[in-house]
Amino acid sequence: MPPGPPHEEHHFTASETVRDLVIGMADGLTVPFALAAGLTGAVAGNTLIVTAGLAEIAAGCVAMGLGGYLAARTDAEHYVAERQREEQETHDYTDRERWEVAAILHRYGVRGDALRLAVDSICADRRRWVDFMMRFELDLQEPQPGRAAQSAVTIGGAYVVGGMIPLAPYIVMTDTVSALIVSACVTALALTGFGWLKARATGLPATRGAAQTLAIGGLAASVAYGIAKLVGG
Amino acid sequence: MPPGPPHEEHHFTASETVRDLVIGMADGLTVPFALAAGLTGAVAGNTLIVTAGLAEIAAGCVAMGLGGYLAARTDAEHYVAERQREEQETHDYTDRERWEVAAILHRYGVRGDALRLAVDSICADRRRWVDFMMRFELDLQEPQPGRAAQSAVTIGGAYVVGGMIPLAPYIVMTDTVSALIVSACVTALALTGFGWLKARATGLPATRGAAQTLAIGGLAASVAYGIAKLVGG
Repeated sequence: MPPGPPHEEHHFTASETVRDLVIGMADGLTVPFALAAGLTGAVAGNTLIVTAGLAEIAAGCVAMGLGGYLAARTDAEHYVAERQREEQETHDYTDRERWEVAAILHRYGVRGDALRLAVDSICADRRRWVDFMMRFELDLQEPQPGRAAQSAVTIGGAYVVGGMIPLAPYIVMTDTVSALIVSACVTALALTGFGWLKARATGLPATRGAAQTLAIGGLAASVAYGIAKLVGG
Repeated sequence: MPPGPPHEEHHFTASETVRDLVIGMADGLTVPFALAAGLTGAVAGNTLIVTAGLAEIAAGCVAMGLGGYLAARTDAEHYVAERQREEQETHDYTDRERWEVAAILHRYGVRGDALRLAVDSICADRRRWVDFMMRFELDLQEPQPGRAAQSAVTIGGAYVVGGMIPLAPYIVMTDTVSALIVSACVTALALTGFGWLKARATGLPATRGAAQTLAIGGLAASVAYGIAKLVGG
């Protein structure tokens, strides 16, 4: 292998676990905070806000966690089904599938003898041929086993952890308005830190990431507050 | 082009818009329904349930819509940054990047002369060379322009439409328990239809898709109901 850039300075590709954490945590921090803020504007009573908040966190955790589970399982089944179909096509439509391999390589400038030889080598082994079509025609990668369950736990867990941060002040404090103020401060801190880490994990400017995440949370809470005030206040 | 299977029987790949609709609609139907059901178990009064429901829908719409916007914009910026880096590497580490092209093709059975010729053709044009590395080493595809705004509107809109379905009975009816029953029936119907369409769009068994989506909604609502009853009832 010829020398290249040092590995740690290479490309950023967020792992699927980081993606799941971000999905769960972003909504978990934002929606329960906004809901609690909205209800503070409309109704008195921390018990009620905590009840609604916990119900929302439970519902969000189950809906997003199981949603993530199904999405990952659907991906896995989709991969198997498409792979079988693609393999059948190399039997039923051999010329067409060879032509498709050639068309993909042609797009990257492989022509003439080089193209003929490359297509021959790829199609010489049916497993590799189907691998090539899955990856480069259909853009599907083989999912990791156990991915679905892990995704469910990560998203659902992140949602609960995220959601308990804005709700905690309403649980431990008695005055609704004071709880809202503490909740806003704690959530703002958490959103900033989370946005910063998220940006770092994807290799983008960390300060901007922190500001954006904070802005989304603030906007969601303001809209929820306004609507709750309008309807219930 | 040699004859192949009829196009409409070919592979299923859900478009990004379908994915966005599914993301918004799934959570929009489930979480507001579960929240309303949970509050029905804990507190009396449709006004309060509607207030909390609308606040949740507003918060979820903003959080998920803007979250989708940022995710799509991050993808686009990530693509540009990685493309620049990859192009720089073809200047700074020419041998290493040629070797990487060879390593990718080697994995699919291209060897010897065929490999040498194919690598030469791909690396003869720097744009195609970088295209190849982006697609096949980093697995990144160029995002469509305008994707971020469209994604935000689709996810946020689907969340509002989905969320208004379970909430509507609480708005038009006065008795809380009757509203819960009607809400459960309407939402169950909507979840079944939505799960069925979602499965059809991804080419999986439609009946199972409908049953799974319904089960997630039911489970989320049961958990939210139980927790709200425990805390607030």
